Amino acid sequence: MAMILYNGPTSPFGRTVKVTALELRAPVEERVIDVYAAAFLDDANPLRQIPTLVLENGQALYDSRVICAYLDIQGGDGSLYRAADAWALQVRIALGIGLMEAGLQRRMEILRPDGERSPSVVEKLEARIGRAIDHLERAAEELAAPAPRMDQIVWACALEYTDFRFTTAWRATAPRLAEWLEGFARRESMVESRPA
Amino acid sequence: MAMILYNGPTSPFGRTVKVTALELRAPVEERVIDVYAAAFLDDANPLRQIPTLVLENGQALYDSRVICAYLDIQGGDGSLYRAADAWALQVRIALGIGLMEAGLQRRMEILRPDGERSPSVVEKLEARIGRAIDHLERAAEELAAPAPRMDQIVWACALEYTDFRFTTAWRATAPRLAEWLEGFARRESMVESRPA
Repeated sequence: MAMILYNGPTSPFGRTVKVTALELRAPVEERVIDVYAAAFLDDANPLRQIPTLVLENGQALYDSRVICAYLDIQGGDGSLYRAADAWALQVRIALGIGLMEAGLQRRMEILRPDGERSPSVVEKLEARIGRAIDHLERAAEELAAPAPRMDQIVWACALEYTDFRFTTAWRATAPRLAEWLEGFARRESMVESRPA
Repeated sequence: MAMILYNGPTSPFGRTVKVTALELRAPVEERVIDVYAAAFLDDANPLRQIPTLVLENGQALYDSRVICAYLDIQGGDGSLYRAADAWALQVRIALGIGLMEAGLQRRMEILRPDGERSPSVVEKLEARIGRAIDHLERAAEELAAPAPRMDQIVWACALEYTDFRFTTAWRATAPRLAEWLEGFARRESMVESRPA
């Protein structure tokens, strides 16, 4: 019996877990669900959020950071977190997750009906997205380690989610990041997990 | 020179870091800022979010999970994360963080001006808060380890934030959790960090 990954069709957090599982060749069976109608998920994860990983013994793991760390340990040698400065790596991961969160919140805001949308919230989120990308562009050399590494996976999923839901225009002011992504995006794990 | 913790006056994430630092007697100097006017923070943390910890060498750490793990390692023996099942501990931490996020999102939603509020978003967040608390009530014995432990700190801060911004009514249906919190809330770290 494999581990079961409850996932959404386009979640950047879910994709991060999927890419991680593919890179590690972890025996994960993915079930794409509609999380808004997933009351059955509550027993495993009362936050009713994807990704949620259910282990063979029934134990549920979340959120994406916990799942990725678990898969990495199971994979053997903690290899996706190797780094000269482990804390800088963790901060890059947190920054990528912040970029995903801003993108997802922006998307949710835009999908609201008339009378419930906040232009100033959208504006603040777009500014945050811009600052996050600018910051990493200035430190793009940090992504130039042998792949895959956890910050690379998170950043690739965060940037492609930005492309998918917001804009590809960041490439004009973040050329080093764009070039790096062009290479990383060709990995089998990225191709196989890309939303249709 | 001490580490500098940029913090907000009422953030549950910031309080979690503060309680952690107090428990570990970490040399942290707190600076309470208005994050909405904190453009100076962008160099350290382009997400412009608190808590952000700036180390003596100028390196910035975020988010709260990364900072707490760092302080714990500096404290010596990883003692706040000791647990028979380390993954169950991580999931309890993630659940507490999810409870904080739901509480904070609910607060932000309610503070919106007329014409930008979503009653259905508030309703979903309140349901999530209720499910999270119900879930932990059923597993309240897991909090009965010698204090302090990281899940206890996160849960205490999350529950008191629920009290502070939403409701104390959860105690009626979560008596074991309420009793546990009554004890933990007396810790010096909790008293000293409690918003006025």
